[in-house]
Amino acid sequence: MTPPPTEDRREAQRLEAFSDGVIAVVITIMVLNLNVPSDTTWRALGHELPSLLVYVLSFTLIGTYWNNHHHLLRATEHIGGAVMWANLHLLFWLSLIPLATKWVGEAHKASLPASVYGIVSLGAALAYVLLVRMIIQANGRDSRVARAIGSDVKGKLSTGLFAAGIGLAWVSPWVAYAIYVAVVLQWLVPDRRFVRQGSS
Amino acid sequence: MTPPPTEDRREAQRLEAFSDGVIAVVITIMVLNLNVPSDTTWRALGHELPSLLVYVLSFTLIGTYWNNHHHLLRATEHIGGAVMWANLHLLFWLSLIPLATKWVGEAHKASLPASVYGIVSLGAALAYVLLVRMIIQANGRDSRVARAIGSDVKGKLSTGLFAAGIGLAWVSPWVAYAIYVAVVLQWLVPDRRFVRQGSS
Amino acid sequence: MTPPPTEDRREAQRLEAFSDGVIAVVITIMVLNLNVPSDTTWRALGHELPSLLVYVLSFTLIGTYWNNHHHLLRATEHIGGAVMWANLHLLFWLSLIPLATKWVGEAHKASLPASVYGIVSLGAALAYVLLVRMIIQANGRDSRVARAIGSDVKGKLSTGLFAAGIGLAWVSPWVAYAIYVAVVLQWLVPDRRFVRQGSS
Amino acid sequence: MTPPPTEDRREAQRLEAFSDGVIAVVITIMVLNLNVPSDTTWRALGHELPSLLVYVLSFTLIGTYWNNHHHLLRATEHIGGAVMWANLHLLFWLSLIPLATKWVGEAHKASLPASVYGIVSLGAALAYVLLVRMIIQANGRDSRVARAIGSDVKGKLSTGLFAAGIGLAWVSPWVAYAIYVAVVLQWLVPDRRFVRQGSS
Repeated sequence: MTPPPTEDRREAQRLEAFSDGVIAVVITIMVLNLNVPSDTTWRALGHELPSLLVYVLSFTLIGTYWNNHHHLLRATEHIGGAVMWANLHLLFWLSLIPLATKWVGEAHKASLPASVYGIVSLGAALAYVLLVRMIIQANGRDSRVARAIGSDVKGKLSTGLFAAGIGLAWVSPWVAYAIYVAVVLQWLVPDRRFVRQGSS
Repeated sequence: MTPPPTEDRREAQRLEAFSDGVIAVVITIMVLNLNVPSDTTWRALGHELPSLLVYVLSFTLIGTYWNNHHHLLRATEHIGGAVMWANLHLLFWLSLIPLATKWVGEAHKASLPASVYGIVSLGAALAYVLLVRMIIQANGRDSRVARAIGSDVKGKLSTGLFAAGIGLAWVSPWVAYAIYVAVVLQWLVPDRRFVRQGSS
Repeated sequence: MTPPPTEDRREAQRLEAFSDGVIAVVITIMVLNLNVPSDTTWRALGHELPSLLVYVLSFTLIGTYWNNHHHLLRATEHIGGAVMWANLHLLFWLSLIPLATKWVGEAHKASLPASVYGIVSLGAALAYVLLVRMIIQANGRDSRVARAIGSDVKGKLSTGLFAAGIGLAWVSPWVAYAIYVAVVLQWLVPDRRFVRQGSS
Repeated sequence: MTPPPTEDRREAQRLEAFSDGVIAVVITIMVLNLNVPSDTTWRALGHELPSLLVYVLSFTLIGTYWNNHHHLLRATEHIGGAVMWANLHLLFWLSLIPLATKWVGEAHKASLPASVYGIVSLGAALAYVLLVRMIIQANGRDSRVARAIGSDVKGKLSTGLFAAGIGLAWVSPWVAYAIYVAVVLQWLVPDRRFVRQGSS
């Protein structure tokens, strides 16, 4: 039922393994930026709550990318230099999320950190769109991965929402945070595109 | 004897590889939170002993999760979106253990950090129970993994013990620490459930 | 078309997996050295720009090594003790890049950090050349990997450019930075050597 | 020539992959403990030299463990619970090396850090000996791995040398450092035991 993987499939698996490694480190080192409460009172613990909440948001966001990236590469047959670099480009933006997370955690009432969080997230979203495009280019319009992706409504919606968040952070950072949460929530709903193709 | 893995089994292996990556980072970055003694005397070194002891506890606890997680996924045939997210949810709680560890290490005589350590541990324990349930749901009540898990006495016992520790930390943090050590010790006793099924 | 991997090939895959792990950590922990702006103004954000730019440079440089290393090991059939140690030697130099990156980010107008960045980069470049040599020695002059590498013009050019940067940093650090950027840009152009051999 | 791996072999590969992940993180996060020079003078750079030298020592020491561990597990056919925990026990001691490294780097002229470095190294060496014993027990005295290990002269010598270093650090830390370097150097000489068995 499952033929032995071709050398190209192995390339895709390798790319995925490296990306998984980077994503595993990114998602975990964020916790190093969380501070221990300054004393052992509930008040001091409550003071760390905003940092913890934005950590939850970023953890889920990166988890979403891992999930999508995984499904994307699973359907990919051909990898080339352009895909390699587009993938590194995505990892670059993901690697900045811990930094933006730390800043929002430290100053969640200010507009600039909330806006910068959106810029970094938009960078990652656009990098993902670019990666998808490079993969389709390398695999052909009729390939399994191209059919599986389809019109990528969620990806486009994410891009738009993050762009809105960047601007609306200047009205109120809370509006921006609400938008970022909405982006993550729409991804939590199972994506039917790949599921129909694959076996899971 | 060993048939080539199906695409589903490969999915499970991938999920395990990513989880292993996150757990490897979590278990290791804890050491970054340990402080070098403030001077080169035995007294200064002794001052770091509580931090070191709670590090040993957390290292063993995370090692236990790795071990159980590994055996769990080894017996798993089907992975779906719900399992993916239940797994990330477990990794989230595990990623908070270094933070709770640092806090207890810095203020081991206070009740709140000891209680919070229990909350984080309980979160991980419940997330594990949830993951098991999602896996059984995806694989069926008669699947190899469902039979292998059985009644999961240890998992339920851990949950209860952590809950007790959260409360008893307010009587004395030492009672809580004793309970947490007991949880880890019961896991160090080999688990016969999977061993009988697998080959190791 | 793809024969099952021999035990030697598996050795090479293992070496690559470990190296990928180290590189994934190296490329990601650099972000821990980036500072959050000191307040929430554009001015404070702009103050972090040099750190961010050198981060981009180092991220791309390490990405280049990952890419080259990956193509190199893909074509490798035999691994021995000398290759193992030559590989660790390369990883050692790569592990110093986050440190050099942090120093340049903190003091980008000074000559010494710019020069030290070149020293570390030259160390990595020479370690890569040495690794290639060890691999050719273990695989033979007529091996697939030896033919694939050919004369390695880019590798030699990198070595020369980094050496130039080390010296010219004392004229102006900006000259050194321009040279380092040039090294990275030449690698971004796809390397035809392995592509012709492999399938990607 | 290479039969498909049995389920036991896959267990060993999994254990090795997780260990590789932990070792990759351990060897890399050490660099986070290295300080950037306090200003941009050669004098400030020279001030970091002891830290850098002990980093080189620890990097090589951990690299040695990775190498030995890799060869050990490559020859292992059976894994059980005892091997799992013995392996985690080894990883625990390895995870303390970055901490000991940082302390020596900060106070290399004092006896206590030099002695503690030896204690941690001895802990790792004994944990390795224990792991070897557990593996032989699980695989049998006549197994490939048991024959491959033989009398393990180097392992025993390392244990003795580290023990000597712990004591002699109180005469002079430099004597201890010389001994630790000697341990690492003896491992750099290729180990013939496994090479003869395997194909590399």
